[in-house]
Amino acid sequence: MITVYGYSSSGNCHKLKLLLTQLEREFKWVEVDSTAGQTRTPEYLARNPNGKVPMIELEDGRVLTESNAIMCWLAEGTPYWAGDAWQRAQVLSWLFFEQYSHEPYIAVARFIRGWTPLDSPRRASLPQLRERGHQALAVMEQHLKSQPWFSGEAYGIADIALFAYTGVAGDGGFDLEAYPAIRQWLERVKQTPRFIEMPGPSVEAVSRLAVPD
Amino acid sequence: MITVYGYSSSGNCHKLKLLLTQLEREFKWVEVDSTAGQTRTPEYLARNPNGKVPMIELEDGRVLTESNAIMCWLAEGTPYWAGDAWQRAQVLSWLFFEQYSHEPYIAVARFIRGWTPLDSPRRASLPQLRERGHQALAVMEQHLKSQPWFSGEAYGIADIALFAYTGVAGDGGFDLEAYPAIRQWLERVKQTPRFIEMPGPSVEAVSRLAVPD
Repeated sequence: MITVYGYSSSGNCHKLKLLLTQLEREFKWVEVDSTAGQTRTPEYLARNPNGKVPMIELEDGRVLTESNAIMCWLAEGTPYWAGDAWQRAQVLSWLFFEQYSHEPYIAVARFIRGWTPLDSPRRASLPQLRERGHQALAVMEQHLKSQPWFSGEAYGIADIALFAYTGVAGDGGFDLEAYPAIRQWLERVKQTPRFIEMPGPSVEAVSRLAVPD
Repeated sequence: MITVYGYSSSGNCHKLKLLLTQLEREFKWVEVDSTAGQTRTPEYLARNPNGKVPMIELEDGRVLTESNAIMCWLAEGTPYWAGDAWQRAQVLSWLFFEQYSHEPYIAVARFIRGWTPLDSPRRASLPQLRERGHQALAVMEQHLKSQPWFSGEAYGIADIALFAYTGVAGDGGFDLEAYPAIRQWLERVKQTPRFIEMPGPSVEAVSRLAVPD
């Protein structure tokens, strides 16, 4: 059985829980609180020198890191990463878009608002993160005006990747009112078979997220 | 024939020129100066709403974006992305590492030093970019202590991706003295068949890069 090392409130980690659940694959989940230094212990760094979650481990001890690479491996040969080589490359393109142009703004704004002190100097970066995050949302909206999914003809791993933090963009202070196609797509994703919501963050994070910035 | 839209001094773009040359594939190169707004024109944005280079276009007009996704498509079925599904996923893991944990620090530090005015406020971020960039270099050094390549048993697209900006890390003010395994790997990459160097930047960029920060 696969072991997933992840932090439940992380969208990057929830991608794997959602995909594994939708693939109806059994897995063991080991909670690793990256916000409390648990990815920086000597034991964890010995397995993943980059000190991040998620990570998966096979029964023989081999490990694989990077949420989107793990999804590709899990989805290989399934309808979640389907089509010809060109279509599969388009899915990869969205996965790289997500990690380069979306997550560093939309996920990081959420992290700063919920997981750093209310007087953190990092909060000064929120306006710039919002500007760049809205650029990513505009690119998604444009795509969704003419196509229902990011993964080709059906829902798949590019949708899971982009859903992860778009679904909680409000936590980062992003208003999705101006993106009707995104809002409809979020609802379509939630209607896919065996969909599961990401667990809510801790009480402390929830209380910080409630404070306007 | 494939058309590549790219900026010659961009490591992300040079990845494609290097891979296509090593694959001995013909291609047409269209120079797009992203530092002069040429990726933000209505014509360019109509093809790539994310407004970035590189992008490839097929003869039938279909386009693919994101340097590492394009490399995967080009390398499909070749020795440059070889091995079983697990090994290919390890290559993807390094490609995501490159775009998330390496390029945003090592490439961006180079960009700020060479392509923004000497009094740019962005230069204040250089110390932090250096710190994060050195973390990425340490992860690479650790890997290279026991393995010669990032792409599995032989040179391939993960090496090309990581070479792109590690090979010009000095431009961003990164000293590779402390990374002997990286320096040896850079030399091995340069010895691969049909290797081509990235063209040097403009005279203006070169003169800025020469100024210590």
